Amino acid sequence: MSADPNCIFCKIVAGQIPAKKVHEDDRVVVFHDIAPWAPVHVLIIPKQHIASMTEVTDADAALLGHMNVLAPRLMAQLGVTGGFRQVINTGRDGGQEVFHLHMHVMGGPRPWAKG
Amino acid sequence: MSADPNCIFCKIVAGQIPAKKVHEDDRVVVFHDIAPWAPVHVLIIPKQHIASMTEVTDADAALLGHMNVLAPRLMAQLGVTGGFRQVINTGRDGGQEVFHLHMHVMGGPRPWAKG
Repeated sequence: MSADPNCIFCKIVAGQIPAKKVHEDDRVVVFHDIAPWAPVHVLIIPKQHIASMTEVTDADAALLGHMNVLAPRLMAQLGVTGGFRQVINTGRDGGQEVFHLHMHVMGGPRPWAKG
Repeated sequence: MSADPNCIFCKIVAGQIPAKKVHEDDRVVVFHDIAPWAPVHVLIIPKQHIASMTEVTDADAALLGHMNVLAPRLMAQLGVTGGFRQVINTGRDGGQEVFHLHMHVMGGPRPWAKG
């Protein structure tokens, strides 16, 4: 499984940087965002280094499906009952800050603006 | 394939309500949002009526993977080069407005707030 030695999320996957993990399996790690925008805010990341959605191919469809099916399951486990938002940011105009693919899952009453 | 006779997105799938479609295949329809939040703003919806992400099961992983793999491909086809954002809203706190699962894909310089 490919990793980028300079990638902060690859270091979290490898256990070299601590994170408040809420789930881990053979394909993904899920942890609490260090700067949450909502009462519950986790990041679902693939263990494999994929820089962004622009690098995704058909071979990644199963991984992305897995990440999506996990999202509502984890929100329920974390006590979120009123709803949540999933966001993937890609590139400059998408506001992507870390170039290792990640899905934000934000639950609870939302402080963020529409959009 | 299940449909809800009162659902506006099921009516778009059935061709009973017009939409500016950009893609259609056996599983999804993609069309321009009627009230865009970004220079390019499309909705990817499953043809099957799934009310929200809270109804998703493992059986929907392939569909969700397909929706995700489509997103960057369609942005490229629509001329988006600087990045984009994918959003799925679920339930009240997630800001979901239409209860037929849909992924917003918004490309181009973003007028929306962080988050």
